[in-house]
Amino acid sequence: MKLRRSSRLVDMTRYLLQHPHQIVPLSHFSERYESAKSSISEDLAIIKENFETLGAGKLQTLAGAAGGVCFVPYMATNEAEQMLQILREKMTEPERILPGGYLYMTDILGKPDYVNAIGRLIASVYADRQIDAIMTMETKGIPIAYAVATQFSAPVVIVRRSSKVTEGSTVSINYISGSSKRIQTMVLPRRSLKENARVLIVDDFMKAGGTMKGMMNLTKEFGASVVGMAVFVEKKEEQSKLVSDYTSLLKLTILEQEEQLVIDPGNAVSSLAECSLNI
Amino acid sequence: MKLRRSSRLVDMTRYLLQHPHQIVPLSHFSERYESAKSSISEDLAIIKENFETLGAGKLQTLAGAAGGVCFVPYMATNEAEQMLQILREKMTEPERILPGGYLYMTDILGKPDYVNAIGRLIASVYADRQIDAIMTMETKGIPIAYAVATQFSAPVVIVRRSSKVTEGSTVSINYISGSSKRIQTMVLPRRSLKENARVLIVDDFMKAGGTMKGMMNLTKEFGASVVGMAVFVEKKEEQSKLVSDYTSLLKLTILEQEEQLVIDPGNAVSSLAECSLNI
Repeated sequence: MKLRRSSRLVDMTRYLLQHPHQIVPLSHFSERYESAKSSISEDLAIIKENFETLGAGKLQTLAGAAGGVCFVPYMATNEAEQMLQILREKMTEPERILPGGYLYMTDILGKPDYVNAIGRLIASVYADRQIDAIMTMETKGIPIAYAVATQFSAPVVIVRRSSKVTEGSTVSINYISGSSKRIQTMVLPRRSLKENARVLIVDDFMKAGGTMKGMMNLTKEFGASVVGMAVFVEKKEEQSKLVSDYTSLLKLTILEQEEQLVIDPGNAVSSLAECSLNI
Repeated sequence: MKLRRSSRLVDMTRYLLQHPHQIVPLSHFSERYESAKSSISEDLAIIKENFETLGAGKLQTLAGAAGGVCFVPYMATNEAEQMLQILREKMTEPERILPGGYLYMTDILGKPDYVNAIGRLIASVYADRQIDAIMTMETKGIPIAYAVATQFSAPVVIVRRSSKVTEGSTVSINYISGSSKRIQTMVLPRRSLKENARVLIVDDFMKAGGTMKGMMNLTKEFGASVVGMAVFVEKKEEQSKLVSDYTSLLKLTILEQEEQLVIDPGNAVSSLAECSLNI
């Protein structure tokens, strides 16, 4: 199919957005559109300038035999700040506080627009790392994990509280919940993670970090390594956290007999600025 | 910011793909690019022709005061057939059969590429309906529900087996599992579904359909209505199903003491052809 430049730009934009973090050889496009590689390179220069100016991400060109183009989604700092501001306002609505100091976030985490934006921000913080899998604990972390995984074109592995008949043989560990101090169990199907896999752990909410630490230990059982940890909301606790070196988008403080809450930004925006792809 | 046509096409394509099933006024684009509405209309005609020829979806133009443009994702029949063929081949790998006649699908449902394609196909079957929420049962259906919800820009509501402290007050019903004939419970937070909401129910796997029927009854408790039901895989059972009028992507038969399996296409492609948006 022979296409004009205007139509090629539309199709290439769609293809790149749907194949993030994947190296696409120039020949893929030149064959698809029956166009010379020089024309494709000019098209890509237009897309690159647009993506990088308007904040969609980076378009990296790789020279040589294994060469091609790779779209790396990247959220600009000002878009990240705007998005976090909207989420802070939504989350400080007073009717969200539930008995026990919990926060009702089900509606927010139910909206694909928010979840996909959260996923884009987390993926941007780790955009310069090689990620082979996104790990999360069932069930509230699952939507965020898929949103991040879509940005990396990487698989999701879901840690469960007990093994399921549909998942075959599993590896199980015990861990101590950081806030309730109880012994709990987490399991992961044996075939879900390869040795030496580079894992990014994500979750929706973190109190003391016991679940995060458990997932780190579980990753080691598979001979895999943790390259990053990110949570949507961390709760400010009196006690110190069980993990360090994680990214949080928002930081929650609940005051005065659990009737008032304060939501501050986490360290995500400063972590974003440290990413070597920072535009 | 003043942009040339080539750069406008890239940016508009990205915007439309990220805002499916939403009406975007032409003024949104003409203000963003400081361009005349006539230029924007010409840009949209290029994108429309490209999307509809290459199988991304429909671009609907709405005239009048509330007018604008609406991108409706739609998977063409041949792409749907190709995708289902790939999934059939992956799923007939013999090492997937687990004791009890279950099928290991965790790796397939862990890949965002597959899950997002499944979501696009389900959303295409119901593309001509008004959908206010996507409902699923925890936990395996969650990724598919978000993939469908992203295509509709609609929220996900997750039915659980028991209530969680983080979800506030809930509505609960009992239902009878169609295959095991046991009484089970399902709950949904009271604030998660509005009266008269139009709900699309999705799940990863269906045996006799007891869970689906339970979700239909739960929807009624909220004064909402079910506009469609879709599953990724349905199992061929001797007994008749408890629900009718659903879409399935694949149909699984397990033969000979559960050591061999056959996967046939479900009714998704023929349902797709019935959609009034069929290109």
